[in-house]
Amino acid sequence: MGRDLSALFDPVSVAVVGASDDPAKYGHAIAAQAVRANGRRPVHLVNRRGGTVLGRTASPSLSAIGEPVDLAVVSVPAAGFEDAVDEALRCGARAIVAITAGFAETGDVGRIRQNAVAERVRAAGAVMVGPNCLGLADNTTDLFLASDTFTPGGVALLSQSGNLALELQLRFRPHGLGFSRFVSLGNQADVTLVDLLADCARHEGTRAIAVYAEDFGDGRAFAEAAADAGKPVVLLTAGRGDASARSAQSHTGALTTSADVVTAACRDAGVELVATPRELTVVLAALNGGRRAADHRVAVLTDGGGHGVIAADAVEATGLAVPELREPTRQGLREALWEQSAVANPVDLAGMGEQDPGSYAEIVAALLAAEEVAAVLMTGYFGGYAAAQGGLGGGGTALADGEQAAARLIAARHRATAKPLVVQSMYPDSPSCRTLAAAGIPVFGATEDAARALAATATGSPGSLASPGVSPLPRPASPMSESGYMETRVALGAAGLAFPAAREIHDEAELLAAAEEFTGPYVLKALHLLHKSDAGGVALGLAGPGELLAAFREMHARLDACAYSVEAMADLTDGIELIVGVNRDPRFGPVAMVGLGGVLAEALHDVAFTLAPVPADRALHLLRGLRTAALLDGVRGRPPVDVAAAARAVETITTFAAAHPEIAEIEVNPLLVRPDGVLALDSRAVLD
Amino acid sequence: MGRDLSALFDPVSVAVVGASDDPAKYGHAIAAQAVRANGRRPVHLVNRRGGTVLGRTASPSLSAIGEPVDLAVVSVPAAGFEDAVDEALRCGARAIVAITAGFAETGDVGRIRQNAVAERVRAAGAVMVGPNCLGLADNTTDLFLASDTFTPGGVALLSQSGNLALELQLRFRPHGLGFSRFVSLGNQADVTLVDLLADCARHEGTRAIAVYAEDFGDGRAFAEAAADAGKPVVLLTAGRGDASARSAQSHTGALTTSADVVTAACRDAGVELVATPRELTVVLAALNGGRRAADHRVAVLTDGGGHGVIAADAVEATGLAVPELREPTRQGLREALWEQSAVANPVDLAGMGEQDPGSYAEIVAALLAAEEVAAVLMTGYFGGYAAAQGGLGGGGTALADGEQAAARLIAARHRATAKPLVVQSMYPDSPSCRTLAAAGIPVFGATEDAARALAATATGSPGSLASPGVSPLPRPASPMSESGYMETRVALGAAGLAFPAAREIHDEAELLAAAEEFTGPYVLKALHLLHKSDAGGVALGLAGPGELLAAFREMHARLDACAYSVEAMADLTDGIELIVGVNRDPRFGPVAMVGLGGVLAEALHDVAFTLAPVPADRALHLLRGLRTAALLDGVRGRPPVDVAAAARAVETITTFAAAHPEIAEIEVNPLLVRPDGVLALDSRAVLD
Repeated sequence: MGRDLSALFDPVSVAVVGASDDPAKYGHAIAAQAVRANGRRPVHLVNRRGGTVLGRTASPSLSAIGEPVDLAVVSVPAAGFEDAVDEALRCGARAIVAITAGFAETGDVGRIRQNAVAERVRAAGAVMVGPNCLGLADNTTDLFLASDTFTPGGVALLSQSGNLALELQLRFRPHGLGFSRFVSLGNQADVTLVDLLADCARHEGTRAIAVYAEDFGDGRAFAEAAADAGKPVVLLTAGRGDASARSAQSHTGALTTSADVVTAACRDAGVELVATPRELTVVLAALNGGRRAADHRVAVLTDGGGHGVIAADAVEATGLAVPELREPTRQGLREALWEQSAVANPVDLAGMGEQDPGSYAEIVAALLAAEEVAAVLMTGYFGGYAAAQGGLGGGGTALADGEQAAARLIAARHRATAKPLVVQSMYPDSPSCRTLAAAGIPVFGATEDAARALAATATGSPGSLASPGVSPLPRPASPMSESGYMETRVALGAAGLAFPAAREIHDEAELLAAAEEFTGPYVLKALHLLHKSDAGGVALGLAGPGELLAAFREMHARLDACAYSVEAMADLTDGIELIVGVNRDPRFGPVAMVGLGGVLAEALHDVAFTLAPVPADRALHLLRGLRTAALLDGVRGRPPVDVAAAARAVETITTFAAAHPEIAEIEVNPLLVRPDGVLALDSRAVLD
Repeated sequence: MGRDLSALFDPVSVAVVGASDDPAKYGHAIAAQAVRANGRRPVHLVNRRGGTVLGRTASPSLSAIGEPVDLAVVSVPAAGFEDAVDEALRCGARAIVAITAGFAETGDVGRIRQNAVAERVRAAGAVMVGPNCLGLADNTTDLFLASDTFTPGGVALLSQSGNLALELQLRFRPHGLGFSRFVSLGNQADVTLVDLLADCARHEGTRAIAVYAEDFGDGRAFAEAAADAGKPVVLLTAGRGDASARSAQSHTGALTTSADVVTAACRDAGVELVATPRELTVVLAALNGGRRAADHRVAVLTDGGGHGVIAADAVEATGLAVPELREPTRQGLREALWEQSAVANPVDLAGMGEQDPGSYAEIVAALLAAEEVAAVLMTGYFGGYAAAQGGLGGGGTALADGEQAAARLIAARHRATAKPLVVQSMYPDSPSCRTLAAAGIPVFGATEDAARALAATATGSPGSLASPGVSPLPRPASPMSESGYMETRVALGAAGLAFPAAREIHDEAELLAAAEEFTGPYVLKALHLLHKSDAGGVALGLAGPGELLAAFREMHARLDACAYSVEAMADLTDGIELIVGVNRDPRFGPVAMVGLGGVLAEALHDVAFTLAPVPADRALHLLRGLRTAALLDGVRGRPPVDVAAAARAVETITTFAAAHPEIAEIEVNPLLVRPDGVLALDSRAVLD
């Protein structure tokens, strides 16, 4: 059920240690906020010199307050940090907000100090946010322990950056978005991102959770908590590029995880991953109303051909579709519009709106009602008639009034359906657009924002294969002691993966004996080499014992390996080579990779990542999503291969790896997929 | 030199035919603008009922004016259009601006009508914009013949959409961008986009040309004119998606061209291709100052780690690099900053700016001076100290003054270098940011906009291989009469492309005779089949005459083709198969495609497009840019192939195709590239 953070977000009483009248000190800004508790709870200001702060009597110490303190904000110089925390715990504090900086972010000494403090906090049954944080706020409990005020609303923001929180605050306003809670993560010495995510998921006043983090802590737990949150989780993070990874590392000492893995974990967990504060705002604006598109089909309505096609491109660029409307719908639109209007999709009023603004509402209603689309985008001039600017065909109070009436009608139609409606307008701040926004219809000035918003309403629908959730880790199996070629092969074989017949041999006698046990053609592999094929340690298609022996003599003279494997050569005809691997990420645990194998794999990097273990249906979805998926169905008259068997093999391999925490990485490459099933032709594992 | 459009942009006198006092009529809006000629030229209003319009005496007809009219705006009902144009020509008009709609956009009848009028206009030595256009404006000659006013500036806007022009007008303002000219393209019956582009390239008052077009007319001429413009050309267009292509077709009757081709033509011509009005504005804001980055290396400066890494990712996402700074630079930064600051890139002031806003200027100067970067991005809070909002660590007039001083210092440093500096600020409208903008430094609120702007400064540098210009079409060669397998092979062979030895045969006797002429292994192909390999019309690796004969009998019994080709089998060892093709686009002429060949080509679509003919150095650049380029250098211990020979073959094939306008499409697939050269293994052509 997660940790109890009630004392953090709704304390009985608060004390600010390090409260100050000096505006240059953070203890001043935070004290000035803290006292605005609206009589909800006592707020004590502590300054070691006593006297007054903000015109109130300041207590020289926590203990001098003379009554228990439920939550203590500690904003003192680093030298006095431990004493302040210890005193707070003695005074009965169940929660500490540690502003003081100079710990893990400065190096190992600081890390050791903060961990020791966190240990004592936990021992006392308390919780601590920070150190090196900027405080927190909860608008639902009148708790203001950060230097800024945050407009009330439904978004809980958990942020590792203060400036980004400020930018989001600025960006939220025009969209009517506000904050239920703000927490500055700081160094997460005790309370972690995952603890806070889980608590905000339970928090009634929070409708969506926005996260900016560079260090995920336990990434696996983060993904699991997000998947279970039951409300939208939007993650803003960096690290896709070389520079940001380099920087995040030095700047937070974070164990950085490859962008592929973060992207995969977010997709699995249904987290909307965004790259900028602007994109985060757009996605939240879209999800705020709680509407979801049932599928990816969108109708585009415009009053000018140009805006229509630009918007259609932007929508399709996000992966959504703008399908031609069905004839019954087109017929209805034709009757409502005039000859020069376009009704296929994009639908273009072509000037009709200027004659009769009501047509906007009529057509929006018709499109919201059309079964063949799951969402509607209105784009272009709407708003301009009522906007001060006037403009081409604009101006005229009659038109302005008509447009306002149309806006009210559109709002009513919108209320009558559950489909998302998103608006792009040249005049997003116009009275008509404000009417739409007030009705919960997201309005954007930029076409690409409107398209991104629509995409957000169509993704992350829980339980869909696109975001299947995070499969639980299986109970650990008895660990592998050896990761040699044969050991790995045997272990995977025991798990149910099919391999060609093979015998380990060490000399010519064993070689010939092995050749007796199955028929050729044979494969000969030198063992205990890191990259067998690169080193010339693999000989394929050896017709009979004679060729096999010749290959052995040549290879042994060259490599002098201590062991070899004689194997039955698989029939490669009509086969596709896949690569299936699992790497253990320090943050996200076992991460599976599936993709096209063989020489092209490196050249193309046509691979997909997901958290292991991977159920077969999920594996099938990933394989079908490869750029080269067409090869699986057979091209140029080849027969299709057994993709279902490949998917089952992926489940077998990834489940095995997930049950073996001692495996740092394991790879089956190639996994031969034929029309009649799969065979693992080679595999390797590395133990921790 | 292009057509003389002087009468269009700087007429001696103007008449508005269809001027009206009825605000619902377009002839009212346009007349109200036209009269604002600032005494530059006489402006006559014509209304067939005479009387007064806008308080001026209106002439009942053009001829009744009694003096010659240099430019006539025609805004009359469609029925009276021809008469109005003819009268204007009789009255000596050298230019017509045809507002009247109801022509090509309504179908073929209208197209025939407008073409007949255009014919008469040209015969009279005049020029006509439109019909079905919204007018034009030239701020450099006080010519206002559109219903809106356009803020004066350096951008010439040629647009097929009025509403998009309005949106751009709104978006330009905050960036200090304005218009030298605005032309509504309309149906381009006489004056085309290309004519206007060429004239704006010559126009002194125009620093950059922005185009919104769905129909390029002569796309090849557009690309050539843009490549020769000598100033930035930015193209906003649609058609990447299915819906927009479908719609543009119905909406302008445009011959739509695949997005691949438009993208290739723009890259060739150095045109910045953008997808939305917002992106177009960002690119123009970046190019307005005329600064270009010498290469792709960018330094990122921030005052908060979060903004730094987010910006670094956004910059790298555009294809630019954020390299680690060299030690001498880092050393200099360390001396200027404090311990917790990051100096690798992104550079993070880490609070220093709050202590001393001057540090922003000092570090910007140091980065502009660093040889290892070609451009600088400053991102984050700067502007906040002087902004009303205050914010975390904000507020305080001393800080605000310090920030303003820093802004002036940054502006001075910027003047002292030629490197682009772009700023992203949470407070783009703050006094400090306005100071930067006034100094010609582009300032954006959104990180992705700042990154896109930097990318624009680094691309399209004339003469670079990234935008090599448009190669002229060779003089047409004597046309091919037949496009059979052998004819195409012979023609390409004569052009210098190497093929294996081959003989066309029709019976077993000819087959055996052919086998005598060169040694095996042989290839046997059935001719005159559309897809030889799919139909089983190709037999490979036939060791000797015996196998060849057997294959012939089997194939002939099955296919009964009238002719076959016996060929020497090429040695495929260590070879890579490429595909090289040229298709003739109705708008852009011969367009070359090069890519990975064989079965994978379809699955991967790893191909590059460019206008043909393709010089070898250009072809090399394209081949190196393929996703699978790594294969060319040899992977898994394979030897590298002769890419230079492949590039020469591309030049040969594309030059041949460009010299044969009768060829609708031609394809060499596979083009075998080996370590020791290239061989064309198969080819086909389709004539118009």
